[in-house]
Amino acid sequence: MVAGAAEAAAHGTRVVLYGPAAELRREIGDSAAGVEVVDAPDEITHFDEPARAARSKPEASIVRAARAVGDAAADALVTTGPTGAALAASLIHVKRLPGVYRPALAVVLPVPGRRLLLLDVGANVAVRPEHLVQFAFMGAAFSAGVLGVANPRVGLLSIGEEQGKGTADVVAAHERLGALDGAPFDFAGNVEGFDLARGEIDVVVTDGFTGNVALKTLEATAKTVVGAIRDAIRSSTVSKLGGLLVRHKLTPLRESFSQESVGGAYLLGLRGLVVVCHGNSSPRAIANAIALSEHGVEEEVVRRTADSLAAAGVLRSGQMPEPSSVPADSVTSHT
Amino acid sequence: MVAGAAEAAAHGTRVVLYGPAAELRREIGDSAAGVEVVDAPDEITHFDEPARAARSKPEASIVRAARAVGDAAADALVTTGPTGAALAASLIHVKRLPGVYRPALAVVLPVPGRRLLLLDVGANVAVRPEHLVQFAFMGAAFSAGVLGVANPRVGLLSIGEEQGKGTADVVAAHERLGALDGAPFDFAGNVEGFDLARGEIDVVVTDGFTGNVALKTLEATAKTVVGAIRDAIRSSTVSKLGGLLVRHKLTPLRESFSQESVGGAYLLGLRGLVVVCHGNSSPRAIANAIALSEHGVEEEVVRRTADSLAAAGVLRSGQMPEPSSVPADSVTSHT
Repeated sequence: MVAGAAEAAAHGTRVVLYGPAAELRREIGDSAAGVEVVDAPDEITHFDEPARAARSKPEASIVRAARAVGDAAADALVTTGPTGAALAASLIHVKRLPGVYRPALAVVLPVPGRRLLLLDVGANVAVRPEHLVQFAFMGAAFSAGVLGVANPRVGLLSIGEEQGKGTADVVAAHERLGALDGAPFDFAGNVEGFDLARGEIDVVVTDGFTGNVALKTLEATAKTVVGAIRDAIRSSTVSKLGGLLVRHKLTPLRESFSQESVGGAYLLGLRGLVVVCHGNSSPRAIANAIALSEHGVEEEVVRRTADSLAAAGVLRSGQMPEPSSVPADSVTSHT
Repeated sequence: MVAGAAEAAAHGTRVVLYGPAAELRREIGDSAAGVEVVDAPDEITHFDEPARAARSKPEASIVRAARAVGDAAADALVTTGPTGAALAASLIHVKRLPGVYRPALAVVLPVPGRRLLLLDVGANVAVRPEHLVQFAFMGAAFSAGVLGVANPRVGLLSIGEEQGKGTADVVAAHERLGALDGAPFDFAGNVEGFDLARGEIDVVVTDGFTGNVALKTLEATAKTVVGAIRDAIRSSTVSKLGGLLVRHKLTPLRESFSQESVGGAYLLGLRGLVVVCHGNSSPRAIANAIALSEHGVEEEVVRRTADSLAAAGVLRSGQMPEPSSVPADSVTSHT
């Protein structure tokens, strides 16, 4: 995190690091230019219950950082998690966009040559149709503003292409998305599990349970296939020789199918962009995540999201406020 | 289908073919020994609404074949689908085991060296906890009786290993499965998407929506990874040379990750075993499916399922019969 922050600062981004100041300063060493350190030695760990810890540990680094975004002292938040703590702290301090039911956790799927955004991958285990509709807008704004996809194609994850396929909630969401007029994306209807790895689609919308399972299935399958190919190549002298000649191609490919290659997960639907990186992210990955969040700020992804939701009339009505507390079991890690 | 039936008959299985008799007999030719042909020229196609067609076309080949199993004139049913028609005809004529809420569609995941059974992959888009509990027994009986796994490890698909992770229904199913005494399987608790491709688990239980998405994600990811490796190998002269030396290893590997390698999907929870093969199955795949269904009959998988459900006290109470009609939108293809 420290090395990544230093790298980002070297490229001109203003970075504020929240954590144990003495330790952070020692690690930064001479590369401290552009990196401000704020002493926040307390932390939320994987052993804490996220929602409770986000309230009971107001001085934890993630809570301090989220508060900085909420107070407009910072424009975006980059963290290595835990995801649950990041979500809980963000809900409390960054806060949802007005009229947004639920933030969603989005990832760019680790498939080389593509930039498919999948959401939700774990912030909400159960969703209603109106949540899925909002996810489409949130994902499309991110795809357009950060990933640079003009007029993104947005699909709804289901178990068949026909409009009537899927759960009652998916069918209802399909109806609403299909009836939209002037949305800043192209609604592609239902897509299937196949389309996550090979489809012509930019954003796939689903509930956090299905999305989390699909993301992990995709990651593990890619690793298993590459491993099986490596084993097969090693299983004979001739293919072993061939393996020596193809190895320089396979190694980068293996990495490109890993979540680590795609920078992190994005919490969308909040008043500021929040990026949750893997705990074992490289300095380069952290620097990329910081650069990406800065790009999102420059492109005003948050304002775009708010504007498109309002223009389409799919905001939550002011009459029925959602509880602002964090549901205890709604949060999972995306890793 | 005809060639596969002939191959199975050559191995001693008694096969009855339902379809247009003249055409079938012409195709069988000299290899007709052991294959009985019943003239059933009507058919249910992908364009028919399955539940309606299964009732309105009583002479369709799939309906005739399901009726033969229901009447005990045949021991098992093998079909190339459509899956929805097979499910609908089976519900009406093969019928559910007494006390079973819903049949489930199960597949052996196409991961080489493993024999993980995933269910449901599309027969039920929404399930209740008691359905998931029954799926565990149905899957375990199949795993033990047909796949030869002694004391199978059964996992519940969720978004984290901890008991409290997942939807309310998953959490409730976890509680019930964890509290079982003397079940003929080892309940492994929650498993994640990762475990579908690489875990130490024999049966994974989930709802038909999540299972369908996960299965298709796994299949498409494997294809995409193998394709990306092929493209990478072709992208330089050196690796192209290496590719020639490894090709004989990669081609069979590619096939082993395909659904076509694993014989079909199994409808569990009925009074007879029903196997739904892919429409483009090879004669060998059809013959394998027939052999497998025969093995399931010999091993009394249906009786084992019924006995274990009864012994565990997880049968549906006689007081609250489920509607026996086929919900129109509950059925999807697994392909």
